[in-house]
Amino acid sequence: MADCNALPLVILAEKFAALPGIGMKSAQRLAYHVMSMNEESVREFADALLDAKRNVHSCACCQNLTEREICPICDDDSRDKSVICVVESPKDVTAFERTKEYNGVYHVLHGLLSPMDGITPDKLRFRELLARVADGSVNEVIMATNPTVEGDATAMYAAGLLKPMGINVTRLAFGLPVGGILEYADEVTLYKALENRNSM
Amino acid sequence: MADCNALPLVILAEKFAALPGIGMKSAQRLAYHVMSMNEESVREFADALLDAKRNVHSCACCQNLTEREICPICDDDSRDKSVICVVESPKDVTAFERTKEYNGVYHVLHGLLSPMDGITPDKLRFRELLARVADGSVNEVIMATNPTVEGDATAMYAAGLLKPMGINVTRLAFGLPVGGILEYADEVTLYKALENRNSM
Repeated sequence: MADCNALPLVILAEKFAALPGIGMKSAQRLAYHVMSMNEESVREFADALLDAKRNVHSCACCQNLTEREICPICDDDSRDKSVICVVESPKDVTAFERTKEYNGVYHVLHGLLSPMDGITPDKLRFRELLARVADGSVNEVIMATNPTVEGDATAMYAAGLLKPMGINVTRLAFGLPVGGILEYADEVTLYKALENRNSM
Repeated sequence: MADCNALPLVILAEKFAALPGIGMKSAQRLAYHVMSMNEESVREFADALLDAKRNVHSCACCQNLTEREICPICDDDSRDKSVICVVESPKDVTAFERTKEYNGVYHVLHGLLSPMDGITPDKLRFRELLARVADGSVNEVIMATNPTVEGDATAMYAAGLLKPMGINVTRLAFGLPVGGILEYADEVTLYKALENRNSM
């Protein structure tokens, strides 16, 4: 923002611009919008920021974000505790829950392996995952990381840890997205769809 | 967000989603991002929100947003106080200041006339504009509202107030944007460009 702007507005715009996916122009617009909100709403917004940061933490079991000691999914007796779906981040849990088809539990790694960026296994929640499967009550671990280099490497690493413990480690199926158009599928997806073809 | 999410996160996502141009999915991503920020940064963000809302107010003269009594532009003796550029919002001031060509002062209306939405002249800063021109020191008022129905109506209304006071009221030129392509200009813009043609 040009220096014709009030300093607190410039600072606020910079805070917005530091968020992912928000450029300087949008950040400026958001800062002006805050000025047009009433004081009560701005206070509620500020409180929501602090409250989320202070009161939300990792579930002691699955590492998903929760404001309780144990998250509602881990605490739900109707969920099948013998199947663990391992995901990169809490938003992946939300995505699976939307399908309403999965009745197992989750484990959130909070990242993917990327040694080049300094993300080694000790930076992720592998220790907690191993602790969960140690008592032998887990039959299957579904590696549901993204089909990217890092996602695949993380799945491979986890499989290497878990298989020797006698756990059935599976990976999400990759193929054509439902409703997708074959013509527009990239080569790798199409190859995966061909390779993993099912009998009808 | 599904109810597998912590309540403070849901609330924070809703606050983000209430901002202009941020949908529920982006809001959710922003809420998760806040969780990954350190506590110090989150506090600074919250403080920036409150600080901007508390300490930024309208300049006593031009109504632009400032943390001082009189904004730096109105307070600048090198600016020509006899020319006032009337704009809709503070971000328009920023846009004009970026051109580095305008040396007059501004007047921010904080909106455009829109009687259908209940925005009548008394809701805008016309009273303050009239007070500024009352002492006869202003020669020209440039109506720099957007070329929309509301912008034009606001400019017309202002002209109706100011012209009887012997003030030269002008309107921004409308025509082809510099660097624009004639073929892609809409009919009205092209007509305006033709109508307002200049001798070479």
